[in-house]
Amino acid sequence: MANKASSRLEWRINVPDGTSKVLELESGAVGKIWVGLKGCMAIIVWKVWKVLENAWHIGVADPRKVIHCIKVGLALTIVSLFYYMRPLYDDFGGNAMWAVMTVVVVFEYTVGATFYKCINRVIATFLAGALGVGIHLVAEQSGDQLKPIILGISVFLFASAATFSRFIPSVKARFDYGAMIFILTFSLVSVSGYRVVELFELAHLRLSTIAIGTSLCILVTMLFCPVWAGCELHHLIHQNMEKLADSLDGCVTEYFKENGSEEDLNKKMQGYKCVLNSKAAEESMANFARWEPTHGRFNFRHPWKQYLKIGASLRNCAYCIETLNSCISLEIQAPPCLRKHFSNKCMKASSYSINVLKELAITIMKMKKSSNIDVKVAEMNFAVEELVDALKSLPTTHFIATTTTGEESTKAKAEGVEGSEHPSPIMKVLPLVKVVSLMVEIATRIGGVVNAVEELARLAEFKAAEDGKPKQNQPTDKLVSDH
Amino acid sequence: MANKASSRLEWRINVPDGTSKVLELESGAVGKIWVGLKGCMAIIVWKVWKVLENAWHIGVADPRKVIHCIKVGLALTIVSLFYYMRPLYDDFGGNAMWAVMTVVVVFEYTVGATFYKCINRVIATFLAGALGVGIHLVAEQSGDQLKPIILGISVFLFASAATFSRFIPSVKARFDYGAMIFILTFSLVSVSGYRVVELFELAHLRLSTIAIGTSLCILVTMLFCPVWAGCELHHLIHQNMEKLADSLDGCVTEYFKENGSEEDLNKKMQGYKCVLNSKAAEESMANFARWEPTHGRFNFRHPWKQYLKIGASLRNCAYCIETLNSCISLEIQAPPCLRKHFSNKCMKASSYSINVLKELAITIMKMKKSSNIDVKVAEMNFAVEELVDALKSLPTTHFIATTTTGEESTKAKAEGVEGSEHPSPIMKVLPLVKVVSLMVEIATRIGGVVNAVEELARLAEFKAAEDGKPKQNQPTDKLVSDH
Repeated sequence: MANKASSRLEWRINVPDGTSKVLELESGAVGKIWVGLKGCMAIIVWKVWKVLENAWHIGVADPRKVIHCIKVGLALTIVSLFYYMRPLYDDFGGNAMWAVMTVVVVFEYTVGATFYKCINRVIATFLAGALGVGIHLVAEQSGDQLKPIILGISVFLFASAATFSRFIPSVKARFDYGAMIFILTFSLVSVSGYRVVELFELAHLRLSTIAIGTSLCILVTMLFCPVWAGCELHHLIHQNMEKLADSLDGCVTEYFKENGSEEDLNKKMQGYKCVLNSKAAEESMANFARWEPTHGRFNFRHPWKQYLKIGASLRNCAYCIETLNSCISLEIQAPPCLRKHFSNKCMKASSYSINVLKELAITIMKMKKSSNIDVKVAEMNFAVEELVDALKSLPTTHFIATTTTGEESTKAKAEGVEGSEHPSPIMKVLPLVKVVSLMVEIATRIGGVVNAVEELARLAEFKAAEDGKPKQNQPTDKLVSDH
Repeated sequence: MANKASSRLEWRINVPDGTSKVLELESGAVGKIWVGLKGCMAIIVWKVWKVLENAWHIGVADPRKVIHCIKVGLALTIVSLFYYMRPLYDDFGGNAMWAVMTVVVVFEYTVGATFYKCINRVIATFLAGALGVGIHLVAEQSGDQLKPIILGISVFLFASAATFSRFIPSVKARFDYGAMIFILTFSLVSVSGYRVVELFELAHLRLSTIAIGTSLCILVTMLFCPVWAGCELHHLIHQNMEKLADSLDGCVTEYFKENGSEEDLNKKMQGYKCVLNSKAAEESMANFARWEPTHGRFNFRHPWKQYLKIGASLRNCAYCIETLNSCISLEIQAPPCLRKHFSNKCMKASSYSINVLKELAITIMKMKKSSNIDVKVAEMNFAVEELVDALKSLPTTHFIATTTTGEESTKAKAEGVEGSEHPSPIMKVLPLVKVVSLMVEIATRIGGVVNAVEELARLAEFKAAEDGKPKQNQPTDKLVSDH
């Protein structure tokens, strides 16, 4: 209530003093409605403005989306020609509707999705049409009384079965749209068969118009700035790798930095969140990518499924970085001398890990086997081992430090036993130990990414990079699991 | 090549010796084709069998999916009546196609999704139809030469704009289907307007048939075993909470257990993976749930968005449990005496954490404020504090142990400096420290889940549980962030 009153007050304040009498009159029922209407209008205008602003940003961020819209408009305008031009009308006119409908329903953002829908639509229409005509012929011979019953039962059975097939994951991934079109066409053919005598004519016309619609879609989507689902997936995986490397860099730098946090670093650190949430996008792109013909550097049978495995191994790393990220905001910090001791080692391990990730990102981007990934993995493992060694020597140095200054040692001991307010030695070391052990775990998981990328290189037959020395046949996974 | 040969050999072995002459003849071109065909057939039969087996399991696991298929068949059979029955034919016959099409396209698994599509379809058809007729009237008055140009440009512009609107996240979430139907109807009306004079008649007929199709869908989906998206989301969140509790229990038990791993425990531990991957499902369900009318315990304006926040906080816990899960398989194990010392404390902290999760799950399930969640959170925090205290006292006990046996102490010291093969003291403690610190972090994150659930209880106005004492007004987040 208080909010409402204050909003009305605001409306009044905006009106100049001279019209205060009018305002008093307005405060009746009409006035309230008027004020309410003005408020509603303002909210609607504001919301529309926000949506438009949002749309503008989306268009600027990815102009291909704008191009896609122009492509849809273009395809629809071309298909309208089937109505405008007289000679075409005589053949398809009455059924041109199906061509329009096909373009609207089938035209998707990526080439793969368009292909998926086109192929599904054509095959499902053909199958359902043939089946519908067959059942119609059987029903025709059973007499007028049985005919509606046979048709009704067949619609019920086939529709139920096709609907159920959409729940099966392997069917859903490839033929979900086809199953729907099958139900649609079969119902239409069975049902309209009851009235329309020229069933073959109808089926022929519908198939032709759908063929025209689908081929137009495929032409437009492939000729004007095509967006390939495969390329998008490839790019997404490459980007996620870069983001993961940046996040790791950001987190470790943030933890060991001397001064306050920078805005720029914070943004960099959040990259792993994209990796955590990209599973659904990766899966749908991989599904569409396998429908795409050979394009650019990708063959028809490019191992898209392996990209999903790389994605999963990247997410595996991201989980660890998420935990690492929560460590760096802990209040208890390790003592400066210890931090400095570990800072170099940890930064070194993280920078070598980042090197591996960046090298993998380059491998993916260039689609060429890296000549020195083995060296970089070995460097990473060596740095991680050094870090582990530093950790191993920690209690001894601590022990030496306490024995040299006897007084402090007994003080610390007393504190430990009594559980004083001053953080005990292990609590001081704990966050650092956590960061170090997470760093080790992240390096292990990067090993998983290396394996997944090597498997991709093998499956997709990446060529060796031109510059470097020949790649040694040493298995990388052995190196990775060594430490 | 070797594989092929061996497969041919197998085919031969299966044939009795008497027909060896025939086999030799078959080994020509015809024989190869025959063998190949048999192989293909076997593969196809095997694949179809696998799909059917899979379908059977899906049906048994969730009979509601089978019921859904029957519902679709039923709705389609009913809508076919518009063709079979004479009196109806006179009114709608020619356009009954649209009713059939509406049922096929609009009927979805959950009530919310069906509502979403129905409402989108009706509104978009109406808007696009009105706009199409308006533009048609304008074009009519501009003369025969300008008419196709005006119609073409309007189709291009509106189709492009509507396509672009589908890229805006807020529009996509609510009106994606509507935007597609808008393009479809607008194109059809503009294009067919060029030929058909009775445009108003057509529009009226199409709207009536769509209205019949949508109302039939809504009736069938709501009357026969309705599946509510809201209920599904509610159930999913509840189940994820239970799974997370089980995973945590499984991981901690597995780490501190004495004997080998059990099959049962392993399965229990994997529950967190479902939580990691349920984001997409949660979002789509929440999107559909807001279209649903009041049902069961849920109002029309139930705070479904808050469920997404609970889901996010659960995933936050799951990330930590994922890291915890990777700790328990580490090779270096802490010495038995230390493990035993921490085992009780850690099991206690984990069991109190699980208690909190289970209590929250009950709160969600019963939709009643828990009377003792504050007590349980306090217990969890107390157990975690005890665990932290045990950790604090760790270096001192270790220190005392080394001073009592002087020989061992110097030995350990020498080992630490030299980096010997025997694991150094800190390496022995490290996995344990990691598990303990992850346990602390998980308890913090469970605090986040508690806050999200309390916010839901506030927004959805959960009633207090009948049994217990009145809920104290103490803010839980303070308790949680205390330790």
